[in-house]
Amino acid sequence: MSSKPDIGIGIVGYGSMGRAHAYGYTLAPHIRELPVTPRLRLISGRTEDAVARAAGAYGVERWTTDWREVVSSPDVQIVDVCTPPGGHREAVEAAASAGKAVLCEKPASVDYASAEAMAQVVADAGVPNAIGFNYRRLPAVALMKQLVEEGRVGDVLLWRGTWLSDEFLDPDIPFDWRFERATGGSTIADLGAHLIDLALWLVGDVEEVSAQSETFTRERSGREVDIDDASAALLRFANGARGTFEVGKVAARRPCDYFVELNGTAGTLRFEYPRLNELWYGDAREDATVYGMHRIRAEHPTHPYAGEWWPVGQGVGYGMTFVAQAADLLERWPDGPWDPDLRHGARVQSVCEAIERAAAEQRWVRVAEVADYASA
Amino acid sequence: MSSKPDIGIGIVGYGSMGRAHAYGYTLAPHIRELPVTPRLRLISGRTEDAVARAAGAYGVERWTTDWREVVSSPDVQIVDVCTPPGGHREAVEAAASAGKAVLCEKPASVDYASAEAMAQVVADAGVPNAIGFNYRRLPAVALMKQLVEEGRVGDVLLWRGTWLSDEFLDPDIPFDWRFERATGGSTIADLGAHLIDLALWLVGDVEEVSAQSETFTRERSGREVDIDDASAALLRFANGARGTFEVGKVAARRPCDYFVELNGTAGTLRFEYPRLNELWYGDAREDATVYGMHRIRAEHPTHPYAGEWWPVGQGVGYGMTFVAQAADLLERWPDGPWDPDLRHGARVQSVCEAIERAAAEQRWVRVAEVADYASA
Amino acid sequence: MSSKPDIGIGIVGYGSMGRAHAYGYTLAPHIRELPVTPRLRLISGRTEDAVARAAGAYGVERWTTDWREVVSSPDVQIVDVCTPPGGHREAVEAAASAGKAVLCEKPASVDYASAEAMAQVVADAGVPNAIGFNYRRLPAVALMKQLVEEGRVGDVLLWRGTWLSDEFLDPDIPFDWRFERATGGSTIADLGAHLIDLALWLVGDVEEVSAQSETFTRERSGREVDIDDASAALLRFANGARGTFEVGKVAARRPCDYFVELNGTAGTLRFEYPRLNELWYGDAREDATVYGMHRIRAEHPTHPYAGEWWPVGQGVGYGMTFVAQAADLLERWPDGPWDPDLRHGARVQSVCEAIERAAAEQRWVRVAEVADYASA
Amino acid sequence: MSSKPDIGIGIVGYGSMGRAHAYGYTLAPHIRELPVTPRLRLISGRTEDAVARAAGAYGVERWTTDWREVVSSPDVQIVDVCTPPGGHREAVEAAASAGKAVLCEKPASVDYASAEAMAQVVADAGVPNAIGFNYRRLPAVALMKQLVEEGRVGDVLLWRGTWLSDEFLDPDIPFDWRFERATGGSTIADLGAHLIDLALWLVGDVEEVSAQSETFTRERSGREVDIDDASAALLRFANGARGTFEVGKVAARRPCDYFVELNGTAGTLRFEYPRLNELWYGDAREDATVYGMHRIRAEHPTHPYAGEWWPVGQGVGYGMTFVAQAADLLERWPDGPWDPDLRHGARVQSVCEAIERAAAEQRWVRVAEVADYASA
Repeated sequence: MSSKPDIGIGIVGYGSMGRAHAYGYTLAPHIRELPVTPRLRLISGRTEDAVARAAGAYGVERWTTDWREVVSSPDVQIVDVCTPPGGHREAVEAAASAGKAVLCEKPASVDYASAEAMAQVVADAGVPNAIGFNYRRLPAVALMKQLVEEGRVGDVLLWRGTWLSDEFLDPDIPFDWRFERATGGSTIADLGAHLIDLALWLVGDVEEVSAQSETFTRERSGREVDIDDASAALLRFANGARGTFEVGKVAARRPCDYFVELNGTAGTLRFEYPRLNELWYGDAREDATVYGMHRIRAEHPTHPYAGEWWPVGQGVGYGMTFVAQAADLLERWPDGPWDPDLRHGARVQSVCEAIERAAAEQRWVRVAEVADYASA
Repeated sequence: MSSKPDIGIGIVGYGSMGRAHAYGYTLAPHIRELPVTPRLRLISGRTEDAVARAAGAYGVERWTTDWREVVSSPDVQIVDVCTPPGGHREAVEAAASAGKAVLCEKPASVDYASAEAMAQVVADAGVPNAIGFNYRRLPAVALMKQLVEEGRVGDVLLWRGTWLSDEFLDPDIPFDWRFERATGGSTIADLGAHLIDLALWLVGDVEEVSAQSETFTRERSGREVDIDDASAALLRFANGARGTFEVGKVAARRPCDYFVELNGTAGTLRFEYPRLNELWYGDAREDATVYGMHRIRAEHPTHPYAGEWWPVGQGVGYGMTFVAQAADLLERWPDGPWDPDLRHGARVQSVCEAIERAAAEQRWVRVAEVADYASA
Repeated sequence: MSSKPDIGIGIVGYGSMGRAHAYGYTLAPHIRELPVTPRLRLISGRTEDAVARAAGAYGVERWTTDWREVVSSPDVQIVDVCTPPGGHREAVEAAASAGKAVLCEKPASVDYASAEAMAQVVADAGVPNAIGFNYRRLPAVALMKQLVEEGRVGDVLLWRGTWLSDEFLDPDIPFDWRFERATGGSTIADLGAHLIDLALWLVGDVEEVSAQSETFTRERSGREVDIDDASAALLRFANGARGTFEVGKVAARRPCDYFVELNGTAGTLRFEYPRLNELWYGDAREDATVYGMHRIRAEHPTHPYAGEWWPVGQGVGYGMTFVAQAADLLERWPDGPWDPDLRHGARVQSVCEAIERAAAEQRWVRVAEVADYASA
Repeated sequence: MSSKPDIGIGIVGYGSMGRAHAYGYTLAPHIRELPVTPRLRLISGRTEDAVARAAGAYGVERWTTDWREVVSSPDVQIVDVCTPPGGHREAVEAAASAGKAVLCEKPASVDYASAEAMAQVVADAGVPNAIGFNYRRLPAVALMKQLVEEGRVGDVLLWRGTWLSDEFLDPDIPFDWRFERATGGSTIADLGAHLIDLALWLVGDVEEVSAQSETFTRERSGREVDIDDASAALLRFANGARGTFEVGKVAARRPCDYFVELNGTAGTLRFEYPRLNELWYGDAREDATVYGMHRIRAEHPTHPYAGEWWPVGQGVGYGMTFVAQAADLLERWPDGPWDPDLRHGARVQSVCEAIERAAAEQRWVRVAEVADYASA
């Protein structure tokens, strides 16, 4: 087995994200030659039985019900924060202050102020840090970025992102933290942070937004629901492009369907998550005989990330994104930089918050009203 | 041949819409037993050669360069107005005043005031009248309406409509009437009127909108372009549903792609125009074993309009909508009522105008600000 | 209206094919400038009421219950034979002998011998003649041919054609002519003639076949069914390419789904009839970055036939094929040649018959065993 | 970490299959509570550097260049054979004779006789044994089986399986073991074994076949190629169903596309590997209003295997099949039985061999001519 130096990972939170991140570290050495060997040292969670079982299942050496142990454990070099959004800040700041590198699940936090404050603490600590926008690492999405950078669509004119699920459709789903603004954040941020991340990455800064939000089921288990079931926004980008944004958790028989499309002066790109091994590309400069779009099978060895996986045609799934994320971070150990980082996470949050405010106040809101960085 | 009474049709405008409407009357008796036999008596257009050629091609008995002849011709009972939007009002009012039934292409006019005034003149004249929202008559779209009415999606929560083409993408396309607000209307109305028609028909009245518009190529052939290349809007419906709307003529390698989706408390319906013989239906009450959506082949003999056409599986195209429209109108000759009528056309225009205003003024606009009917 | 010379059309058979052909002649002048004006003079059928109604609906001037009248009528120049296959030969030979041009629906006949004999009579008569392989005239299929001819797929290695419907699935469908070999021919020929036509046209002659056939419901209404519910074959082409062929009328929830694919040394082409405005093209010489296939929107004005129809993106349907067929024939009036002709129809029939024999005798059968032409 | 007993795994072959199987054992405990903890003890391969690197990457404790060490190693309880097909028999027999449980990659061997002999040796040894038909464990494919078993398609009438890739299209690919019959087996068995496995599993025994095979590029690197580039077959099943089968490695821009479809008396099922998280189901008993097929999102928690993975809508990839396979085997440790076993592997091989013989001899071949078991 490997003679590379070990690096200790500690995971805060053993739920679906904790599981996915553990999966990522486990497989990262399978797909890429790394400078270090990741060791899953410790995982934390509130419920003793469950966290113990999770540690056994995911191959984590130890478990604890006190997340502070993860942060203070001397054999942990990277703290990976996978709690609900309301808990991110405290854990991230504690970890960075203890000199640990930090990976934080998205969205960064439940509001821009706390996300930005947390990013500042981490920056001051000078530790490698990252925000978990895992979808960027799908071959098809990474290829989308590559084609944009290569000028294959020219200048982007229009961007659209839509995310539909049926997670909240049934009014009889009982109340839990997902329905509480202070813990779960908004649907705008939960689903939308991924879309906004892709918008900023592929198009550029958002300057101004108009939006609407609705909560169709306002009470669950006798408690008030204070997060949105569905929201939508219009976006004006700094470079003049225009965008539309929609997230909704009340779309029947849509499990987790998101779609991102760019229309540029020279071409169109479209990604459909339900068929995540494909990328649609319409090249406006191509011969009219083949007028239409390419269905790129985004799993060719020449495509980003794809060559690390299976022979072409076999396809990857969602889990792959966590492996690629882990590999990208470990590959740059110990110097980094990691990308995207928590400051970028805060920027995404600022747009989410501008959307939330625009919906609440029924007016166009400049992102600069929410976030200082944007007022320059 | 038929011994049914003849009914004379006169068409104002011989362009692509004039052609499509002539096609519709020609075929209507092929697909349905009608109380009358349509006769294409007269077609008008400004360019003598072209209108003469069109008359020959479409099987119209006579042609003229003066549209007033169509209106005044005694052997014409139905005047079908197919000019650019800026010319609709004058022709429609003249026809109605002459006691002719009127079919007017969409959008009704270039602004709400003129559309409403025209609808009033026509109502006062008491003649059968219709607005050309032909897509309603696609089997898949008519089936969508049927399924909504049958309660198959429950109460509509979300609606979205998007229409993308590349018609205006190339900045070297020279100036013509399509780029002039006064004649061609807006892209919001050109493409969007169809989407708004479907929104009103399938969901209900729109109460308030926010919007943005952009003209990326602001000058063509040395002349200022005063219509939008792309626009988007957020919609609040009177019944509490929320909607998103987008139209754009700068989407590379998108020929004429529109999409309409509804998410209700009990199901989802989605229509994709590029595959117009299909309707997607997700039934939230169905057994989870078949979780997903039905791809309905909307050409079964039991589906609306479909039984009039070919054996199942063969599929219809765009042209079919004009045949069905002609048949629906002729079938109700002479008493009507025709549906949708010009008043409905004006309502659609009021929403388009609210969108235009909301974009111009960067604020939410109530449809009631534009249109009296909505202030009730 | 047109001042071009009239040409009289007579249609033998008023069923779904008679209807479709009448539709074709009616619209041909709408889409193309033709040297003649088609006039639907006479239509025949056994049931008086029905044929009278059909004449009225399709705009045919006169009707008769005696098909011989169509053939002998002096104002008829083109006889269009739309009866069940078992009736083709007699009508076609009578028409050609009377000096009329002939269009015969596919399959040419119910066996190769009669198809070939009929082709010979027609050739001897020296009249323009055609067989109704209408699907060749879909823009997507015609484009497929064009791309093959342009060398865009290199040399064809593999061909596959599959046609699935559920027309015969229900064992309770009562007996009618479709279940009787002598009148309806085989399913191999009914559905398969189109596939074999495309194989011969796109790849070249078939030399040898192996096959199987099955009739799952062997009795209907107390009568023996002597045609196949489903058949499949392996094909060896003269040029060394290999093919697979399948037809079946017992495929649940498949209305009329056919698929044709070619794999050549330089590319792949695939046509899927359920989405008939699209053509899939994989170009093996293209940059791996776009590895995959083009979804060509086969309705661009530069595509064959497409420019005659609607603006790009609107799409055509099945009916269009009959209009294009009529226009192609009328355009070459009076000299022809018409393409594909009845001799080609007989060739297609020889392959169908070889398939039928190979299935019956459970052995590879050379087409030359069935047809002299192939023994050269 | 886990206190369950360890079970030692040894892998013979470190290539793409060795890698995939190692991946499977690594993740199996992440997705399922197992009675044992798998330990990757030893991996073998001919090239020292490469196998050492593989051991490091896949987390295998030791490596060797002598596969016999894997078989004889006392801390190995399961030997997993991942060499090219020509090497399976020797390793499998040695392992079983040493009392080890065996998992053998497909196809079982390079001919039926050796596959059957090997299955007999293993049966005599009484060890748990399995053949690697991993695709059965895709949620969509397992769901297909479930729906067949539940009677949702009635009695199967037609089956079709097609597998297309471009792996051998380029004539300049140099000779390697894949082009040598004795080592790599045939394309019929390489790709086709999976298809035949699904045919036997979903429909039942195959009784008789006709086939054709072609090698388009007959020489590579100056050596004769003695395996097929493409083959196709007609199948007659023992229960009266009919089938078609095609495999081809010369299909341009088809990376690894396979398709399996069943048409039964009550429904149709279709699986398309390029979109492996979906299953198409047409239910002939359903209301005609929804005529068409369900696109089942085969990742609902109620679907087989799916609940072990990610939240619905996220999707799995190819790698998942190896995890599910490992989990299924480990779950039944130590008593088994494992399914499918090597005897089933031999049965699949008998059909592949009948196809090969039918192609070579250009005649229908009964599987009983190849395999005793089938002559009963």
